[in-house]
Amino acid sequence: MADSRQIQVIHGPSLNLLGTREPEIYGSTTLEEINATLESAAKKLGAVVECFQSNHEGALIDCIHHAISWADGILINPGGLTHTSVALRDALAATALPVVEVHLSNVFAREEFRRHSMISGIAVGVVSGFGPASYRLGIEALVDHLAAG
Amino acid sequence: MADSRQIQVIHGPSLNLLGTREPEIYGSTTLEEINATLESAAKKLGAVVECFQSNHEGALIDCIHHAISWADGILINPGGLTHTSVALRDALAATALPVVEVHLSNVFAREEFRRHSMISGIAVGVVSGFGPASYRLGIEALVDHLAAG
Amino acid sequence: MADSRQIQVIHGPSLNLLGTREPEIYGSTTLEEINATLESAAKKLGAVVECFQSNHEGALIDCIHHAISWADGILINPGGLTHTSVALRDALAATALPVVEVHLSNVFAREEFRRHSMISGIAVGVVSGFGPASYRLGIEALVDHLAAG
Amino acid sequence: MADSRQIQVIHGPSLNLLGTREPEIYGSTTLEEINATLESAAKKLGAVVECFQSNHEGALIDCIHHAISWADGILINPGGLTHTSVALRDALAATALPVVEVHLSNVFAREEFRRHSMISGIAVGVVSGFGPASYRLGIEALVDHLAAG
Amino acid sequence: MADSRQIQVIHGPSLNLLGTREPEIYGSTTLEEINATLESAAKKLGAVVECFQSNHEGALIDCIHHAISWADGILINPGGLTHTSVALRDALAATALPVVEVHLSNVFAREEFRRHSMISGIAVGVVSGFGPASYRLGIEALVDHLAAG
Amino acid sequence: MADSRQIQVIHGPSLNLLGTREPEIYGSTTLEEINATLESAAKKLGAVVECFQSNHEGALIDCIHHAISWADGILINPGGLTHTSVALRDALAATALPVVEVHLSNVFAREEFRRHSMISGIAVGVVSGFGPASYRLGIEALVDHLAAG
Amino acid sequence: MADSRQIQVIHGPSLNLLGTREPEIYGSTTLEEINATLESAAKKLGAVVECFQSNHEGALIDCIHHAISWADGILINPGGLTHTSVALRDALAATALPVVEVHLSNVFAREEFRRHSMISGIAVGVVSGFGPASYRLGIEALVDHLAAG
Amino acid sequence: MADSRQIQVIHGPSLNLLGTREPEIYGSTTLEEINATLESAAKKLGAVVECFQSNHEGALIDCIHHAISWADGILINPGGLTHTSVALRDALAATALPVVEVHLSNVFAREEFRRHSMISGIAVGVVSGFGPASYRLGIEALVDHLAAG
Amino acid sequence: MADSRQIQVIHGPSLNLLGTREPEIYGSTTLEEINATLESAAKKLGAVVECFQSNHEGALIDCIHHAISWADGILINPGGLTHTSVALRDALAATALPVVEVHLSNVFAREEFRRHSMISGIAVGVVSGFGPASYRLGIEALVDHLAAG
Amino acid sequence: MADSRQIQVIHGPSLNLLGTREPEIYGSTTLEEINATLESAAKKLGAVVECFQSNHEGALIDCIHHAISWADGILINPGGLTHTSVALRDALAATALPVVEVHLSNVFAREEFRRHSMISGIAVGVVSGFGPASYRLGIEALVDHLAAG
Amino acid sequence: MADSRQIQVIHGPSLNLLGTREPEIYGSTTLEEINATLESAAKKLGAVVECFQSNHEGALIDCIHHAISWADGILINPGGLTHTSVALRDALAATALPVVEVHLSNVFAREEFRRHSMISGIAVGVVSGFGPASYRLGIEALVDHLAAG
Amino acid sequence: MADSRQIQVIHGPSLNLLGTREPEIYGSTTLEEINATLESAAKKLGAVVECFQSNHEGALIDCIHHAISWADGILINPGGLTHTSVALRDALAATALPVVEVHLSNVFAREEFRRHSMISGIAVGVVSGFGPASYRLGIEALVDHLAAG
Repeated sequence: MADSRQIQVIHGPSLNLLGTREPEIYGSTTLEEINATLESAAKKLGAVVECFQSNHEGALIDCIHHAISWADGILINPGGLTHTSVALRDALAATALPVVEVHLSNVFAREEFRRHSMISGIAVGVVSGFGPASYRLGIEALVDHLAAG
Repeated sequence: MADSRQIQVIHGPSLNLLGTREPEIYGSTTLEEINATLESAAKKLGAVVECFQSNHEGALIDCIHHAISWADGILINPGGLTHTSVALRDALAATALPVVEVHLSNVFAREEFRRHSMISGIAVGVVSGFGPASYRLGIEALVDHLAAG
Repeated sequence: MADSRQIQVIHGPSLNLLGTREPEIYGSTTLEEINATLESAAKKLGAVVECFQSNHEGALIDCIHHAISWADGILINPGGLTHTSVALRDALAATALPVVEVHLSNVFAREEFRRHSMISGIAVGVVSGFGPASYRLGIEALVDHLAAG
Repeated sequence: MADSRQIQVIHGPSLNLLGTREPEIYGSTTLEEINATLESAAKKLGAVVECFQSNHEGALIDCIHHAISWADGILINPGGLTHTSVALRDALAATALPVVEVHLSNVFAREEFRRHSMISGIAVGVVSGFGPASYRLGIEALVDHLAAG
Repeated sequence: MADSRQIQVIHGPSLNLLGTREPEIYGSTTLEEINATLESAAKKLGAVVECFQSNHEGALIDCIHHAISWADGILINPGGLTHTSVALRDALAATALPVVEVHLSNVFAREEFRRHSMISGIAVGVVSGFGPASYRLGIEALVDHLAAG
Repeated sequence: MADSRQIQVIHGPSLNLLGTREPEIYGSTTLEEINATLESAAKKLGAVVECFQSNHEGALIDCIHHAISWADGILINPGGLTHTSVALRDALAATALPVVEVHLSNVFAREEFRRHSMISGIAVGVVSGFGPASYRLGIEALVDHLAAG
Repeated sequence: MADSRQIQVIHGPSLNLLGTREPEIYGSTTLEEINATLESAAKKLGAVVECFQSNHEGALIDCIHHAISWADGILINPGGLTHTSVALRDALAATALPVVEVHLSNVFAREEFRRHSMISGIAVGVVSGFGPASYRLGIEALVDHLAAG
Repeated sequence: MADSRQIQVIHGPSLNLLGTREPEIYGSTTLEEINATLESAAKKLGAVVECFQSNHEGALIDCIHHAISWADGILINPGGLTHTSVALRDALAATALPVVEVHLSNVFAREEFRRHSMISGIAVGVVSGFGPASYRLGIEALVDHLAAG
Repeated sequence: MADSRQIQVIHGPSLNLLGTREPEIYGSTTLEEINATLESAAKKLGAVVECFQSNHEGALIDCIHHAISWADGILINPGGLTHTSVALRDALAATALPVVEVHLSNVFAREEFRRHSMISGIAVGVVSGFGPASYRLGIEALVDHLAAG
Repeated sequence: MADSRQIQVIHGPSLNLLGTREPEIYGSTTLEEINATLESAAKKLGAVVECFQSNHEGALIDCIHHAISWADGILINPGGLTHTSVALRDALAATALPVVEVHLSNVFAREEFRRHSMISGIAVGVVSGFGPASYRLGIEALVDHLAAG
Repeated sequence: MADSRQIQVIHGPSLNLLGTREPEIYGSTTLEEINATLESAAKKLGAVVECFQSNHEGALIDCIHHAISWADGILINPGGLTHTSVALRDALAATALPVVEVHLSNVFAREEFRRHSMISGIAVGVVSGFGPASYRLGIEALVDHLAAG
Repeated sequence: MADSRQIQVIHGPSLNLLGTREPEIYGSTTLEEINATLESAAKKLGAVVECFQSNHEGALIDCIHHAISWADGILINPGGLTHTSVALRDALAATALPVVEVHLSNVFAREEFRRHSMISGIAVGVVSGFGPASYRLGIEALVDHLAAG
């Protein structure tokens, strides 16, 4: 469909290990499964997703910049960069695209240093703590937001 | 249906004014409309909701205690009590029910004193910033969580 | 007079004890005397006051919400809630009415935890330290503000 | 006996759930059992107790105010309000009655936000960590204090 | 009149610019107009005022010292020195005269560094946020205080 | 009696001066009187106490270590070491014995630096503010705790 | 030239000692030499400068106020007042003129208390660490800014 | 000229977007234009510049290391890495080359987290707030510094 | 030998410059020499090492992830990333391999911002301050730990 | 005597009021008496003093600058400027003369904001708390220091 | 002489090494020489001193307690215990004797952790920074204080 | 051998309990076994060790002072004093001997108050977290350091 929403999905450092490591915190779903679910969920919402994962902050920023030229919004789980990266925040802000921030675990109930996000200040909203469902809820929220925009 | 999920929905102080006051922050949907949407969304998810709003912390705690006897989970927007109420946190923790915390505005992008929640530490997860959609996403997340439990 | 200003006066927790307890801090005037003085002062300023006291944060918020429908402004001494209640602040902000905050004692010269007010950030102004006169000065300031508005 | 000591016992939010919820933290004794024990302990000390529980800060303050007219001292477990309520502190201070603060769990060994009490600054003393025995030790301490006064 | 109250009014740095600069914060009334209003308000209260403005902390302190020999009280808007000057505080304390602190804007609702006053700790009380009316309310409060003294 | 509880009572620095110095803070009872009261109170509870006082942190730690071999619990008033000594905390933790912490004055109502205890984090509970009665209540609490253990 | 830019150059406390004291920190150029260089640099840029130094905060504020009537911009090295003076900040803000802040040494690499400036918040920009060249770069920046304005 | 100064110019994350995004903060000049201006300004100062931009912290560090072998100084706008990157600071310090730090916007007047720079502590100096002119002033300052060295 | 331990050695940003830059802090040994020493030390301990250095956080994380498939433990000097990188911490934690953290200089005796490590919280232990010997001691500690595991 | 030591004695704001105001804090000796005592004490030590008092920070700095040309050392009681004035600190540091800081009251035992001195960091030493004797001890210390220099 | 003042002089940990270690900080005078000087200085002032040094906090406290029975005042250099020992502070306070605190080096100009003294809050005054002369000035101040008492 | 290195090994409070208490934190090796291992490890390194344990800070300081006369270096596990004792730090600094600090557990991964060491600032280096092996690695590091010195 011509006017389907284009969503850049971005996964930060170590999320490539999903489903194989620390399942007691992050669950047993793999990143491929999450991406597949997102694609199908997007389809139902009349949207398409492009998924990208990197352990490199710079590669994430490159991807964010690139989204300016084609995407309508960004869904991001910045992983450990959530709490420290002003550069990521600046890149997201520079796109002027709506950003939805998601986390698998409830970061607000973990170590003190995880309770603050550098990203939230420029995000439309945050979904945190629902495992892979955080992504699905996040894309729903983002498409909603775009529809309302 | 015998095994449909029972959800206590709780709205904290001043949320009764929704839709009529400060629409630039909280939107123009009324609390009645949100409750109606929640009921219908719940229905689709095989769940039923009981909605309660009060400006009294004590009444909210009474309601939370009462939920122990009948509910499977709690969806709460604690309003201004989010940031200050240990009593509310303790009441929620005492129920041992899964709690999902929602906010209409993105509290993490507002005044400094709104960036910390006393509730998140005992919640399953948090949905913040999507206006009335935060509630809908929240109930979806809660029913999902119950299904997975 | 048709166009006289309508003022909701609100007294927070423990102010019902005024004049009978801790007179070395709060003076020997009773709340009834303060209310009487306010009524007569208001009259001279072409205003009428409605006075309310409660030890319940929720009841104070209910009263504040109700003021939306009839009052032109709010004069409030939030008592001990001054320093802690985001819910009270939100309720006052939601009314979009001008708010004047008053204190009998000079809270800025007392314990550290009394030197910060959650309410001041959304108030027109603050009068603190003049005993019962703080109320009288406060209502004068509020009527002035309404006249200038 | 004409001169027996009159003690107002006050239980804060969620203490009505005692014995049925989170026994690993708060033990399995119910509030009714604690009250019964207090009554019999008081009797032995030549004192009588009046017990009150509420989840409403305002109701607790009303009760504290009322104690001015009949009680010789106050024994209080403020629950989650311990750490946040200036209004409760002010109400207790306004009575000019001796106050003993008790806690079931050792609040000083729990989360950071539980290690500070707004009440201790105006209390005669504190008993914390001994489960239901905290109450019994507290009433003993309070009657002692009154005897010495 | 022999027994009329003598009030030293003191305006701190940059208040000479009132009415001509940043009217959106400080209003359009000039300092001369404020002084004239104060004189006439004082007259009605059976008091006389002496007004002084300086951009020099030292000159303000000299003036405060001089007030010891003739004034009954001091009304001061310390401007930017409010938040930093221990020397001004010490000078005011040394006079042993009652001091009323006033501010045109509501300093408690502005930048973080304006929310703390070095002066409040030794003042009778504070009036903040009512524009030029802050001065008029302040002198009324001061004369009241002197009458009650 | 063979199975009577063995309690090591430990008094920290300067407590040897009790009853002779600063009676307005610490009362007029001497340490000998406190120890005598403790012995008789212990007897009634079917326990025996061994009392030790030292101004030397090291001697207190030696005594704590020695308690491992014979005592069932420790009652300690760490005096000024309460607020600073990690070494004392570690020694107490190493014994794996239940520890009850007591204070004559209500340390939570004194100087800021006295409101934090290094010991509370590893104690069963705390009794503070009841003068010599703090010790008596403390031993009662400790014997209770041992009985429940 | 009729339309040449008028710049008020302001040097704060102790800058009169430049070149003769602590050359290892501030270099060996005197203030006269700096002023001469500024004059000639200004000339080349089609601007004229008026230079003023004082050790008196009040005199600096008087000078700033005076600039309102004739200058197009202010170049200031506030010396030690940089870190503490709200009054200076307020005076500069009140002029509504563009302000450029300069420092001889790199204040951001010195003692902790020098790393925060009260002035930067209302300045166009800051040049710090290049010795006398800081001034020359600063005036260039200011004239540029005026040209772009 | 054989002895012309060699300057490595480094632009941090997202600066590649200059001129096309958030012009209200960063202006409408593109990075290419800035580089061209720098080249021509350098030429006039008898210097040559090598310009590099990357969104990758690691690539920036590689570039900094490489500068050891050929450059006389470094001009850097670290973008969002300014406030967080110890690795960037260490790389710059390791070169032992003079470093000048520049910012387009006045970072000291923006969000709290932008007011601290990890880089300033090892820089010769800082130029902040003059838009593209910050670069030009910075290269002038750097060449000056090299001339004086 | 079939069962020899496999160790991934990781060097963070700028450690490639070892021996050539800032020898007064980091000594004159090159990274190649350190790696050679590590290989020979490992051999004596019945272990083999794989050495990797990068200035790119992302490349370090990729390397850490790869270690999951073949290594028994990780020896890491995270350089400047030590103090800031949650992403690195998360990657190391995700491997579930034992991690030993080493530093050439004694980071605990340097600038305040170097005294906190994001890595230590998930490391077996830390060796800091012994120059190249820190690595040798670290590998010894790691092999010991693996032997004991 | 040709080689007698020349000492500049400096009294900060409000010290001119000594002996007439707040004698319970500052004693009943006047500044003239202190100066007379200092002159005679100096004489015995083979030194001469020049005494200066001002309420103007700027005048104090001027005096400090002037001391460069004739004095061997500075004895200063900075009054309320002690805790806030970087400008005073910089002026004293610029003289490169030995500075002794004195206080009449024991500033370290008063309000929190008086426990930190901006001056101590560049002083030879501090004498605080001995009333007028602080000055006499201070000059003795300064002359001693000069003799040892 | 019957009425000569009795002074207990107390030297804290490591002061026994004076004159032999770290002379660049503490000078080359030995503790024996300091004691001899103190004895002769005391004699001139009509006082006698008893000198005591220990590295044991407990021994220092014992000595302080013993002073109650014979001394008129205490002169103490608490060494490293200055900054940490509440127990030492309590012991000194318990004597109710006037205490003068002295330091050889100017502790207020050293590491951050040396700028706060636990002792100053209960001392008459402090002398810091004059090497061995600090002691001589301190005893003079103490005898003066006793004379004035 | 004449030139073998002499090492003073020092164990702080409660380390005498090693192997018998809290083995889950500190392991099951006794202090005697550690000392024996250290002696034999030292022998191999051409060094001799003298081992000392005390629960008394003062005794540890005495031992440290004594080391000046015979030892070449100090290996210390300060136990709980690590985090609080300035006196211990000063004693170690006074010896001017190289100090290596060791910890059995990884103190940087435990409670917040254990993450700061008063000793590290004057140590050559730190070994933390490897159980008894920390000592062995520490002595190796110390002998290495002495060899390189």
